[in-house]
Amino acid sequence: MKIASYILPNGQRSYGKVDGDTVTDAGAALKADFPDLRALLAGGAIDRLEAAEGATVALDDLTLLPTIPNPDKIICIGLNYMGHIRETGKDKPAKPSIFTRYPSTLVGHGAAMIRPKVSDTFDFEGEFTVVIGKAGRNIPAARALEHVAGYTCLNDGSIREWQRHTTQFWAGKNFDRSGSMGPWLVTADEIPDPATQKMETRLNGEVVQSTPISDLAFSIPELIEYLSTVTELLPGDVIATGTPSGVGAFREPKLWMKPGDRIEIDISGIGILSNPIEDEA
Amino acid sequence: MKIASYILPNGQRSYGKVDGDTVTDAGAALKADFPDLRALLAGGAIDRLEAAEGATVALDDLTLLPTIPNPDKIICIGLNYMGHIRETGKDKPAKPSIFTRYPSTLVGHGAAMIRPKVSDTFDFEGEFTVVIGKAGRNIPAARALEHVAGYTCLNDGSIREWQRHTTQFWAGKNFDRSGSMGPWLVTADEIPDPATQKMETRLNGEVVQSTPISDLAFSIPELIEYLSTVTELLPGDVIATGTPSGVGAFREPKLWMKPGDRIEIDISGIGILSNPIEDEA
Repeated sequence: MKIASYILPNGQRSYGKVDGDTVTDAGAALKADFPDLRALLAGGAIDRLEAAEGATVALDDLTLLPTIPNPDKIICIGLNYMGHIRETGKDKPAKPSIFTRYPSTLVGHGAAMIRPKVSDTFDFEGEFTVVIGKAGRNIPAARALEHVAGYTCLNDGSIREWQRHTTQFWAGKNFDRSGSMGPWLVTADEIPDPATQKMETRLNGEVVQSTPISDLAFSIPELIEYLSTVTELLPGDVIATGTPSGVGAFREPKLWMKPGDRIEIDISGIGILSNPIEDEA
Repeated sequence: MKIASYILPNGQRSYGKVDGDTVTDAGAALKADFPDLRALLAGGAIDRLEAAEGATVALDDLTLLPTIPNPDKIICIGLNYMGHIRETGKDKPAKPSIFTRYPSTLVGHGAAMIRPKVSDTFDFEGEFTVVIGKAGRNIPAARALEHVAGYTCLNDGSIREWQRHTTQFWAGKNFDRSGSMGPWLVTADEIPDPATQKMETRLNGEVVQSTPISDLAFSIPELIEYLSTVTELLPGDVIATGTPSGVGAFREPKLWMKPGDRIEIDISGIGILSNPIEDEA
């Protein structure tokens, strides 16, 4: 099942089941009990959405929001594809490198990602992304996938100049509306083994990143075990598993996103997350 | 005015004005409009708390919570005291180093800070801490203090072994209940110039950190300008401005916190944040 979060034509926030070009809105059937997709996951109630009846709305009439608009945590993994690790001149690290984004840094599918005034070093990072469905701390890798609700695409848009101000990535990763997440959640039953999927990033239609998910240095179960040793993972938490080779910062000449561009993250089994680029107003 | 967040003897969460050993609870007077201190700040309603009448409760009968129990952001500055910078063998950096903590990593005054099972390298970091009162983006340093609601103490408790797994500090800074914040907010009118204050950290009564706040490498207005260039600061956001020299990791022999210890952060004009150390259950 595909589940999207969105704004209805009447301005209300909602979520619903995606079938082709239409959405069955959770609306009256579920929203009193579960006001948003995060609450639906926390309630263990995905099955109720599968069965729910509701208004049918054309996808084109909705404004899509980030897959989970209000996660407790957005956890990002750095340097986690062997191709990207080699590109930066490093060896496979002993431990995963972790940083965070705020929900305010992400827009949904179709909305503009914003290049800030202070720097034009605006780079793309396509990422295969996990959404947690069941809370847990100290989760062993062997049981990690039981805690996954499903998967989505994320563009970990980065202001490289600010990312390199210090050793800590925060400044380059947290500009308002500099990234995106979507177009929707694909439930885990549809992707039993993420390693069999592949991801492609396209800038203005040209392929700039292309990788099998199997090239991950730390697998999704390994990441969940490591992260949950530190902090309790909660339903709706987002884990962006890292970007493959091909980012603009490691090209010569550098390839930065600029107003008028369109950036797409295309993951097999999930869909296409597409965003235009605009300048900060 | 001093404002604390706490759990009442009846189990309800609340906040109120601290006078000596008692608190005037916001209770019926304000909680319908402003359910917590973050909401009070967002409503620009500190003056209403000053004037509010309510039940008087002894501080000893309350369970104190982190100053802001539910901030949108907890932003931490690394390497921001000249004494600590020299201790790590570095020069003054060109830009502030930023990382984040989750609210789940902090307990209130009096509650136990938890040493995790996976490492005994549990270190203290006393920090003079800003709480934002008025939202803003791209705030110039000259106007930054207009956005400050007040100040509090924070113990940026760190699992050093995990902090050094990679270049990113996240893993060492985000263990559940590994830090603390409190005992309360002191409104900015009581501390017109933070640089005139001083901070002392004591482990089992022995002074382990002692600094004037004037030793900050990046001042509070400079930090607010930098941070708000990246992201909108919101009422209730927490900025921990960094720790001075004296942390356990740079001592020989190393000095780690262990069960049975008591760690105190004492900042002039604010108060004492005191926590016992316990092992993860």
